[in-house]
Order: sequence, then C-alpha cells, then structure tokens
Amino acid sequence: MARLIEYEEASDEVRAVYDEIMAARKVDRVNNFWKALAHDPVTLRRTWASVQEVMRPGALDALTKELLYVAVSATNGCEYCIASHTAAARGKGMTEEMFGELMAVVGMANETNRLVHGYRVPLDAALREE
Amino acid sequence: MARLIEYEEASDEVRAVYDEIMAARKVDRVNNFWKALAHDPVTLRRTWASVQEVMRPGALDALTKELLYVAVSATNGCEYCIASHTAAARGKGMTEEMFGELMAVVGMANETNRLVHGYRVPLDAALREE
Amino acid sequence: MARLIEYEEASDEVRAVYDEIMAARKVDRVNNFWKALAHDPVTLRRTWASVQEVMRPGALDALTKELLYVAVSATNGCEYCIASHTAAARGKGMTEEMFGELMAVVGMANETNRLVHGYRVPLDAALREE
Amino acid sequence: MARLIEYEEASDEVRAVYDEIMAARKVDRVNNFWKALAHDPVTLRRTWASVQEVMRPGALDALTKELLYVAVSATNGCEYCIASHTAAARGKGMTEEMFGELMAVVGMANETNRLVHGYRVPLDAALREE
Amino acid sequence: MARLIEYEEASDEVRAVYDEIMAARKVDRVNNFWKALAHDPVTLRRTWASVQEVMRPGALDALTKELLYVAVSATNGCEYCIASHTAAARGKGMTEEMFGELMAVVGMANETNRLVHGYRVPLDAALREE
Amino acid sequence: MARLIEYEEASDEVRAVYDEIMAARKVDRVNNFWKALAHDPVTLRRTWASVQEVMRPGALDALTKELLYVAVSATNGCEYCIASHTAAARGKGMTEEMFGELMAVVGMANETNRLVHGYRVPLDAALREE
Repeated sequence: MARLIEYEEASDEVRAVYDEIMAARKVDRVNNFWKALAHDPVTLRRTWASVQEVMRPGALDALTKELLYVAVSATNGCEYCIASHTAAARGKGMTEEMFGELMAVVGMANETNRLVHGYRVPLDAALREE
Repeated sequence: MARLIEYEEASDEVRAVYDEIMAARKVDRVNNFWKALAHDPVTLRRTWASVQEVMRPGALDALTKELLYVAVSATNGCEYCIASHTAAARGKGMTEEMFGELMAVVGMANETNRLVHGYRVPLDAALREE
Repeated sequence: MARLIEYEEASDEVRAVYDEIMAARKVDRVNNFWKALAHDPVTLRRTWASVQEVMRPGALDALTKELLYVAVSATNGCEYCIASHTAAARGKGMTEEMFGELMAVVGMANETNRLVHGYRVPLDAALREE
Repeated sequence: MARLIEYEEASDEVRAVYDEIMAARKVDRVNNFWKALAHDPVTLRRTWASVQEVMRPGALDALTKELLYVAVSATNGCEYCIASHTAAARGKGMTEEMFGELMAVVGMANETNRLVHGYRVPLDAALREE
Repeated sequence: MARLIEYEEASDEVRAVYDEIMAARKVDRVNNFWKALAHDPVTLRRTWASVQEVMRPGALDALTKELLYVAVSATNGCEYCIASHTAAARGKGMTEEMFGELMAVVGMANETNRLVHGYRVPLDAALREE
Repeated sequence: MARLIEYEEASDEVRAVYDEIMAARKVDRVNNFWKALAHDPVTLRRTWASVQEVMRPGALDALTKELLYVAVSATNGCEYCIASHTAAARGKGMTEEMFGELMAVVGMANETNRLVHGYRVPLDAALREE
C-alpha cells in the first residue's frame, strides 16, 4: 500500500498541487489518491491538470461526466474509484434513482458486450461507416 | 461467426420478438445482434425485454444511457457494441463535441483506475461509508 | 500480425511439437496459434505441455473444460480463442442449446459482477470463510 | 458501500422478491447482493427473474452453470461473486478436485487469450465460418 | 470507424500538433490514432503532450517503456495498440527473442492473476505494508 | 478464502515444491499464493515450473520481467499480484522513480487503449504486416 504523503512532509512542488486541489474543490484536505501520486510529482501534476481539463463542464455537464466515470470504474472493478466518483456524483446531484439506473445500464452493457463477443456478431453494413 | 437468422426463416417465437423490435424502433429490419441471439429464443426474448426496461428514459434520460453504454463498451473493447450504441447516441442527439468529451472521460477513468490499483490507494475514511 | 511458421520451414525443435499436436489431435495440420507461438520454441513447448495437462479429462470432463475456456474467452473478447474453443466444444458434443445456455450464463455473470462492484456489496459473513 | 436493506424495513415490493428468493433457495435469509439491489426494486425484480431463468438446469446442468459463473467471476476479479458462486457450486456437488481443475482451465485460458492477442494470431480459414 | 482527418483538411490547431509529432518522430506522416483524435483538438493536444512526457527516457529507458505499453495492450486486447507499440519497440531495439519473452511474461501474469482471484489468496503479512 | 496449506500438514508432493521454492528464493517460507495452490498439487507443480522458466533472465533481464508483471497486474486489478511483484521488483533494484514511471506508462496505455477502441481507429497500412 502506498505510503501517503501528507501536506506537512510534502515538497514545495507537491504542496503547490495540493493547494490547487483544495482551492478548486473548496476543501481543506486532499484525497488519498493525490497523496499516493505525490510519490511521483510529475504524474501528480499532469494527472491533476488532465482531470481538471477532462471533467470541467463542456458539451457534457459535470454530473454526466461523473456518471461516466463511475460506469468505467464499476466495469473495471476499481473500488476506490467507484467510491470517490459516486460521492462526487452525489455532490453534483445524483439521486438514488439515478444511481440505480446507472448501475442497471452498466450491468446490461457488460452482459450484451459478452453476448456479442461470444456469438461473434458481425457488424451490420449500416454500422460499418458509423 | 454466428449464422444470422433472417425473418423469413425464423420461428414464430422469434418473429414475434423481431416484430416488437421493429415496431418499437420504427425500423424495418433488426440488427445483426438480434439475428444472432435468435439461435436461443429464450435469451432473445429476455434480453430484448431487459434492454427495453433498462434503456427507457427514467431518472436518467435516453441519451445519457446511451453514453454510458458506449463508455462500458469502449472499456471492454467491444467493437460491435461501440458502433451500434454510438449510432444510437447520435440518433438521440449526441454531437461530435459530446462524443469527444465522452471519450476523454473514458480514457481518463481507465488511466486513473490503474493508478489507483498500482499504488494500492487505501479508501479515505470519508469514502468508507459512502 | 505474427508471420506463421509452417512445418516445412520449422526447426527440428518446433517440428517435434507440431508432430505431437497432430498425433494427439489426429489432424494433419496445426492451428495458427501454434504456428505463431513457434517464434518462441520454449513457450511453444511449455504451452503445449500445459494445455495437454490442463485440458485432459479429470474431475471435470473434456466438454466442461471447453465450455469454461469459451466462457473466459468471451469475457476477455478474444475472437480467435472463442472461435477455436467453440469449434473444439462442438467436436466434443456441445449442441446449439448448450451454446445458447453457455452464453446466457456468461452474459449474466458479467452483468452481476458489475452490479456487485458498483454497489460495493460487502461479503456475507457466511461467505467469508468459504 | 451500499447500505443493506433488511427485510424488516423493506417495501412490500422488495419483500415479495425476498420471499421468492428464500422460498426458491429454501433458506431463511437472502444474501447481501439482494439487500443491496433492493435500493432499486425494478433491477432487483428483473435480476432475480433473469438469474432464475438462466441458472435453471436445461441443456447444461446446474453445477456446470455454477462453474461457468465462477470462471467469469475469477476472470473479472469479483471477489463477492467468486465467493458466493463457489459456495453455490460446492452445494451442488463441486469437489476440491473439480475446483482445482476449474481454476487451472481459467488460468490457462487467460494466459492463451493474451498470447493470441499479443501475437495477433489470424483466424484459421477453417474457424472463420465456425 | 472514425473518419481520419488528413493534414490538408485539418485546422491550424490540429496541424500544429501534427507538425510537432512529425518533427519529434522524424517522419512525414502521423499515425491514424492522431488523425482520429483530431476530431477533438483538446484531447489531441493533451494526449500528445502526455505521451511525450510519459514515454521519454527517465528512470526507465525508452525500450522498457514500450515493452510495458505492449504488455498492457495485449492484456486489454487492443490490436491497434499492440501493433503500433510492437513496431515502436522494434524500432528501439526489441529483438524477436525479447518479444517472445515479453509475451511469455504477459501470458503467465494473466494466468496467475486469475489463480489468485479464484483462490482468494489473502495478502501475506509481509506484503501488507509493501 | 482458500485455506492455506502449511508445510507441516502438506503432502510429500507439496513439500517437495515448497522446498524447491525456498531453495530457489533463499527464503525460509513460501508465499500464501503457493500455500493456496497446494490444494491442487498438479497445478502447484506446473505453475512453479512455468514461473521459473518464464521469469529467469534471458533476452530480458529479471527486473524488466517483474516490471511487466506489475503492469499486467495493475491493469487487471489484482492486489495480491501487484503487492508481491512490486516487492519482487524492489528486491531486484526498482527505485521509487522507476515505480512512478512504470505506473505512468501503465495508466497512459490503459487510457489510449480505450481511445483507440472508442474511436475505432483503423490499422495503418504500415502496421498491418508488423
């Protein structure tokens, strides 16, 4: 298990990222994910910048992006990611009904993905150029 | 590759499902997925009923559900599923900008899922009960 | 794509494995899988020996083992593996009904696996020591 | 972690499913999986009905279906699913020898799936139409 | 299939990235991957910058990084990624013997990962704090 | 969870493998992985022999092989495998900087694998025969 790097012991480079995270999220601590990544300040910096860019509202709103994050994380079985992005989605307005439907779609998609693989379903001509 | 069962050669049981699919989707043919599943009429019937139930608009709208389907399918590398649900999402209003952001989130989530696994990041106390 | 190493051009070491495969399977050619692995004779030899040991009838019969192989391959989306082990399963007695039920179980298991992940279902006490 | 919905606090709709599960399985409690799904009674009902349909003995017997479930769950790394379906398989007659061979096939299939991917093995002509 | 955006039709923003790629790699065309990503210039720019940062020689040399890329891609079954990073690894000195050993490790790791999952092997005390 | 088979209670067949492992690794205990596999002495023997063959230094050195093992295990989310092979890699000289770069490559590869899938990027002509 990665030793977590706390603010007090962090380098200036790492503290600068922690400061940005806390300011952007209006919290007074950073999640363990960032404290683990702090072992590699280059990846910490790049990942924080990328997450900022990817998750900001654009053509898709912030809640939809969190739902997509949970869908991928449930498919990959990443408990930490499911927990943290489910919390983030709740913070952005996800209700229990929405979570239930999210899970239902994720389950169904994982099921039909395997039916398609197992039956080796050929692409419809109409889908070839899609 | 599964031989596809065309309407003309299908049993009455299978034709009944094909008829429902064509009526519900307002099309005059069914996709290869259903023609492959037709080898097993029980699974054909159950899968069609389940997809109907899961994908109908509810707490989440129909487009969001298609985006989630694409996110799972891209994570699993199911080309047929990506193609068919990307087409469905476009039919429900997905723009090219939305697709780009969808892919960006899917890519990022797959990346951070593995950083979490590799660093063995422990759950934050606050996330434990989430 | 791996260049396939044909019998005529193969080293003695590789030919010896090809001969064993053809004798064991009572065929006069080996599948492309072995012709690709032949680039690495050590892995070719070990993989053939391991497959022999693992797939031979024991507490589980040969057909059940092929069904399991297809289940894993469909879950992983390995088209070649699905095709070759579906063929092998058919050769060992898998009917179309059996294939249909196999796929139904594989699909269902992939679905519920994700429901479990997404809901973060805790282990029942009774399952902890299972 | 999903809060588990106990029988006492469950809605009539959920209790009806719990009653069916306990009756079908001849037990006096339901597993945590169902208590988590109870947050979404629609998915609870559909999943229970689907599992009943898929897992009932047919062309494949009940034990073989449980083995397949374990194979998929081990491939996906779903601990809960492995534990619960291993227990179910034991209840249906799986011996320790059978479990050992099951795992050996699952491991081998996961290994060769990746060898096929990495070497990009082309489909044999004979497998193309399989 | 994504329509590929060729240099001639690309926006200035996209051309600037294409120019950087061609200069950095000393080639006169960019791979299809970049021509597909060009639909989303923000992701194109970020992905190119990130790949540059991640793949440059550091504590690990450039060839080792390509081998790791192939290992992940073979595990995920991404044919395009396997093909392009195998080519890159060859360009950086990977011999046929090295590729064979790479595949052998990838296969074995995928096998033992599933044995660990299936047997639900508990962490050794000594590994807990690793 | 698999009951672990300790040396004292192991059969002669299992003890012989344990002895080989302890001698080869110059340790006085075997990891839980082997104690779980001991339920199936045939798989225990084959897996140990295969790991020996695959992980021995050859065209790739021992450290590179451990890094590849970690890359696959992080992609698959196998915590035990990540922990044990990270420890092994450290024992063979992996520094914290190397681990950071390893994780960065694994994350990036998992990200771009999905971008390739989602955009359905066609193989470049030049990669077709690679």
